[in-house]
Amino acid sequence: MNALNPMLIAPSLLSADFARLGDEVRAIEAAGADWLHFDVMDNHYVPNLTVGPMVCAALRPHTSLPIDVHLMVRPVDALVGEFAQAGANSISFHPEASDHVHRTLHQIKERGCRAGLALNPATPLSWLDEVLDDLDFVLLMSVNPGFGGQKFIESALGKIRAVATLIDHAAARTGRRLRLEVDGGIKLDNVAQVAAAGADTLVAGSAVFGVPDYRSVIEGLRSRAEHARIQA
Amino acid sequence: MNALNPMLIAPSLLSADFARLGDEVRAIEAAGADWLHFDVMDNHYVPNLTVGPMVCAALRPHTSLPIDVHLMVRPVDALVGEFAQAGANSISFHPEASDHVHRTLHQIKERGCRAGLALNPATPLSWLDEVLDDLDFVLLMSVNPGFGGQKFIESALGKIRAVATLIDHAAARTGRRLRLEVDGGIKLDNVAQVAAAGADTLVAGSAVFGVPDYRSVIEGLRSRAEHARIQA
Amino acid sequence: MNALNPMLIAPSLLSADFARLGDEVRAIEAAGADWLHFDVMDNHYVPNLTVGPMVCAALRPHTSLPIDVHLMVRPVDALVGEFAQAGANSISFHPEASDHVHRTLHQIKERGCRAGLALNPATPLSWLDEVLDDLDFVLLMSVNPGFGGQKFIESALGKIRAVATLIDHAAARTGRRLRLEVDGGIKLDNVAQVAAAGADTLVAGSAVFGVPDYRSVIEGLRSRAEHARIQA
Amino acid sequence: MNALNPMLIAPSLLSADFARLGDEVRAIEAAGADWLHFDVMDNHYVPNLTVGPMVCAALRPHTSLPIDVHLMVRPVDALVGEFAQAGANSISFHPEASDHVHRTLHQIKERGCRAGLALNPATPLSWLDEVLDDLDFVLLMSVNPGFGGQKFIESALGKIRAVATLIDHAAARTGRRLRLEVDGGIKLDNVAQVAAAGADTLVAGSAVFGVPDYRSVIEGLRSRAEHARIQA
Amino acid sequence: MNALNPMLIAPSLLSADFARLGDEVRAIEAAGADWLHFDVMDNHYVPNLTVGPMVCAALRPHTSLPIDVHLMVRPVDALVGEFAQAGANSISFHPEASDHVHRTLHQIKERGCRAGLALNPATPLSWLDEVLDDLDFVLLMSVNPGFGGQKFIESALGKIRAVATLIDHAAARTGRRLRLEVDGGIKLDNVAQVAAAGADTLVAGSAVFGVPDYRSVIEGLRSRAEHARIQA
Amino acid sequence: MNALNPMLIAPSLLSADFARLGDEVRAIEAAGADWLHFDVMDNHYVPNLTVGPMVCAALRPHTSLPIDVHLMVRPVDALVGEFAQAGANSISFHPEASDHVHRTLHQIKERGCRAGLALNPATPLSWLDEVLDDLDFVLLMSVNPGFGGQKFIESALGKIRAVATLIDHAAARTGRRLRLEVDGGIKLDNVAQVAAAGADTLVAGSAVFGVPDYRSVIEGLRSRAEHARIQA
Repeated sequence: MNALNPMLIAPSLLSADFARLGDEVRAIEAAGADWLHFDVMDNHYVPNLTVGPMVCAALRPHTSLPIDVHLMVRPVDALVGEFAQAGANSISFHPEASDHVHRTLHQIKERGCRAGLALNPATPLSWLDEVLDDLDFVLLMSVNPGFGGQKFIESALGKIRAVATLIDHAAARTGRRLRLEVDGGIKLDNVAQVAAAGADTLVAGSAVFGVPDYRSVIEGLRSRAEHARIQA
Repeated sequence: MNALNPMLIAPSLLSADFARLGDEVRAIEAAGADWLHFDVMDNHYVPNLTVGPMVCAALRPHTSLPIDVHLMVRPVDALVGEFAQAGANSISFHPEASDHVHRTLHQIKERGCRAGLALNPATPLSWLDEVLDDLDFVLLMSVNPGFGGQKFIESALGKIRAVATLIDHAAARTGRRLRLEVDGGIKLDNVAQVAAAGADTLVAGSAVFGVPDYRSVIEGLRSRAEHARIQA
Repeated sequence: MNALNPMLIAPSLLSADFARLGDEVRAIEAAGADWLHFDVMDNHYVPNLTVGPMVCAALRPHTSLPIDVHLMVRPVDALVGEFAQAGANSISFHPEASDHVHRTLHQIKERGCRAGLALNPATPLSWLDEVLDDLDFVLLMSVNPGFGGQKFIESALGKIRAVATLIDHAAARTGRRLRLEVDGGIKLDNVAQVAAAGADTLVAGSAVFGVPDYRSVIEGLRSRAEHARIQA
Repeated sequence: MNALNPMLIAPSLLSADFARLGDEVRAIEAAGADWLHFDVMDNHYVPNLTVGPMVCAALRPHTSLPIDVHLMVRPVDALVGEFAQAGANSISFHPEASDHVHRTLHQIKERGCRAGLALNPATPLSWLDEVLDDLDFVLLMSVNPGFGGQKFIESALGKIRAVATLIDHAAARTGRRLRLEVDGGIKLDNVAQVAAAGADTLVAGSAVFGVPDYRSVIEGLRSRAEHARIQA
Repeated sequence: MNALNPMLIAPSLLSADFARLGDEVRAIEAAGADWLHFDVMDNHYVPNLTVGPMVCAALRPHTSLPIDVHLMVRPVDALVGEFAQAGANSISFHPEASDHVHRTLHQIKERGCRAGLALNPATPLSWLDEVLDDLDFVLLMSVNPGFGGQKFIESALGKIRAVATLIDHAAARTGRRLRLEVDGGIKLDNVAQVAAAGADTLVAGSAVFGVPDYRSVIEGLRSRAEHARIQA
Repeated sequence: MNALNPMLIAPSLLSADFARLGDEVRAIEAAGADWLHFDVMDNHYVPNLTVGPMVCAALRPHTSLPIDVHLMVRPVDALVGEFAQAGANSISFHPEASDHVHRTLHQIKERGCRAGLALNPATPLSWLDEVLDDLDFVLLMSVNPGFGGQKFIESALGKIRAVATLIDHAAARTGRRLRLEVDGGIKLDNVAQVAAAGADTLVAGSAVFGVPDYRSVIEGLRSRAEHARIQA
């Protein structure tokens, strides 16, 4: 028991071509992606406004991949219902953005989605203390959210290791292993470090969409990550 | 001297297919549209979140039509700069959403865009009292903003007539004629009334994108509007 | 045609004994009141917090009088639904507290309640310009809302007259006469002025609940008001 | 030294009949309750609006029991003074709702009330790190606040045990034992678990007010709680 | 009756040397200024933060001139009391920044200060409709507030004339003449226009503090203004 | 190796004479101060409004001392740039006031300033968990911020010791020693305790500015602090 989770690659549409998202989604699925990462920003929790539930719903028929919605919004609760209805399969949010984190997590689960907490680089892990068993995954930000194309913050590696340990202990206790997703600045040249530190769900934006051959990047990210995990 | 403005049809992307916006934009231009209407909602000023500046920038290379950005957001000022940079040609906002309406209008103009004020169905025209000469256009909402596909509010016709009169008087005084844009529930069966009341820039969402032949709807809207204006 | 509305007395529970509201409600109904006025404050739109929908629902079985809910809250929309379900018969709110006043008014009406706009002493009548025909009543505040027991602001008399004229004109045009409700500092010694100015729905709090014999005050208010209206 | 606190039962008026609160309060006192729990919601910190300081003041003459005010509001400070004046004996609030938690706690104490921090199910215990010695009690929520009648969250038991340990250590150090209050879904069939985990102040709403015989429930809750504590 | 008000010059400390405000205040008084204009910005109502009540109190002993506090803040009410206590003689605020404008005006007056409403360039005059008789002065902004050194907005002249007419009518009716203060970009070369339009209280910042000889500018402003008024 | 930082005395201008800040700054520098502490309050994060970037810029030419800006504001980011431009040398803020603490810290550093986090008396140290290596200093509040002249909170001593230990460990690991600044109620009679607990940067307001001879207080604070540190 307590086997590791399969390594997943989740390209972030934040770096895709917004003029032809349906094509991008199909191309990414064909190229072997595991999840579609969907970044929602409301110009209040973060200083940028991206795309909302109508865009998610428009993409739903174009793919059978799970859509992984990251809510960078405040307040959170009303959008949970809208994204669940728009076809989201997992939804994460920032605990500082909800006054009732436990309620929000269970609203996500009652809608049939996996529930995650997203933690900014400076957010302490104490936010996980009381809700680890209510989560399906933890999303650690390795950049400050708001924009694509930022550089990986090195100090995130220690935090990934710390959360991996929490997840190991919880798995030993409950027999259920949370996913550990990492988002921000992951590239071919640092993915091994991220995976070795314990991440099993890797978001990549510009690394994937910035090159013509999505498949080779996705395969490269996955193989380096899987290899690094075995080594670790 | 005070000639009327040419009648413009501005399809709203709110009803387009968000999975292939580039195609939609090209199709709409080919079908004879005059402006592209781009609805920005931030889940704070209105209870919905749509699309932001990155989507606008992605569409810019697909069309030579003016992009007409309607900001249903609070606060307004930071997004003005981002949309100007993303290729917007006109930007409107709601006066209740800015503490310094005159400053926001001039920020729009300094960025090289046409500036408009958007008025909700219940918003009194007194908001225009001190800024009519600072505007390039007035956007009257004939539905409460937040969602596509709503029904035209009949009492908007009187308000259109009232603003048309204000614009006439201003044109007589200054020699410059503001555009009068109307948005919400405009269809083939009511466009004549809207144009007869004085509108010269007609936003249409589901009326256009809800049918296969965009050209016939756009031409139908325009011909009925022009005809009604001559009759009026 | 445009007959005047019957004069109504609406005691405000803000001055009742909150320890036995059911008794108070029954006593007021027995004493001849026409409406129950229910003041809702959320400590954000006004600097006080009073009672919410659960209290309204608890009173509903105790009376057959219409419950007239005055929302001194921001935001407004969610509470409209809760009070409609709690048994409210009319709901008013302040236009500055809703970004989409027309939508809020029609949400009230779709729930089967009469819809009103409440105007603070300093709020200009221009807020009524575009929505007079969407209203069932106007609520003019003759004190600044937030507390019971305040003194009537004399300058409200001119505003009452101005709204009465607007209502007269609308009635002549539509055949439907809005109610003109006034709230704040109405007593036996000034009710005649208020009615003579054009009010037909009179809220009274401490005037009624501050004396042992509710009936005599209610009758006194009504008879003086009706008499003054005939004289006017 | 360090004796346990007497077990207290604090019926929550959230489930009482708001039409006759004075009667309810007297009945609850006669039935043997120890504290009256008074839930204040402002429709901002939680999505519900209940009752404010005027209701508290109206109940004060009806009972000699301590009134235990739980502020589910943001901001907090102004209401502290109003509830102290309205007769509250203890006041708790949520630390996320005050920018200056230490100041708020001491405002409560300077007004002569016991001061407590209320922690939502997901709120980490790190919020207690710097203020444990400034508190008179900790209020752990075993439901997400906002509504009566919710189901007890099982994972709260571990959190109760963790806080009980903190309180034990503090009592050993200071000779003063904080109360540990628990609120949410406590019934006859789970009260023993709650008390065994370390709670000594038990809020019960629908369990008490949902049955005709308040006394038997209160006595049942207390005896099961006391028995479970001895066993633990 | 209805004589014009004496023309007043009110140098704005926003352009003074903040390192020696006491000296500046004494110099300005010696140079013949009538009022000291004190600009308060809170980085919320306007995008700048300037000086608060402690600075006002520190200047109070340095001058016998009236201190004229312009609150560019939201919310307003708490600062009214603090500035009154800090020695302010007149206080103005923006009506959009207070939910209860009539109450705020009377709080100012109850503290013994003159009360004014400040109107941004785009703010309609309808905000004055119900409170003209509650005011001691109107402050018209001829720039968008937030920064010193901006250019006078020409269209303000028409607005000054409109307010001057309102004030004339009110003076004829009540025998009391409000002051009409104008703030923003007033210089020696445009002061005549401003005064001819009807202003009688002239704020000048960089015009005064940007030159070595305060007296000559203040006298120049006053003499040109008085002369222009006679001509008008 | 991990030598202690030199002991610094940072007089807080909050207690200086705001009418002659330039003189005060020069006097403080002449009296041997090490840093100038500059308290920025916006009437939102704290209930007071003090001084903003224009005042900072006005003082910059009067001193060569580092200006240490403590931002008691929400939001934080825009003011960072303004104070950096106004000549600040170090900037601290409260982590609860920024949604993206890591980004804010690095904005401060990119502007060439030292970056600090300010912790209120009740704020847990878990806020430091993920950012200790991004900081140049920690500012511990030993009063609740908002006003000068408050009394030192005794329980801050334990928190100072705890942070000093964190800093020791980090210094051993990285070879770089953060400063530990303490602000609130420091006087000649308690400075030894504060320094013995581990503080090396001591803010003092009324202790310094409340006496005629700044030098003797500054020297007294420093010598007692240095002596206490040696003893500790």
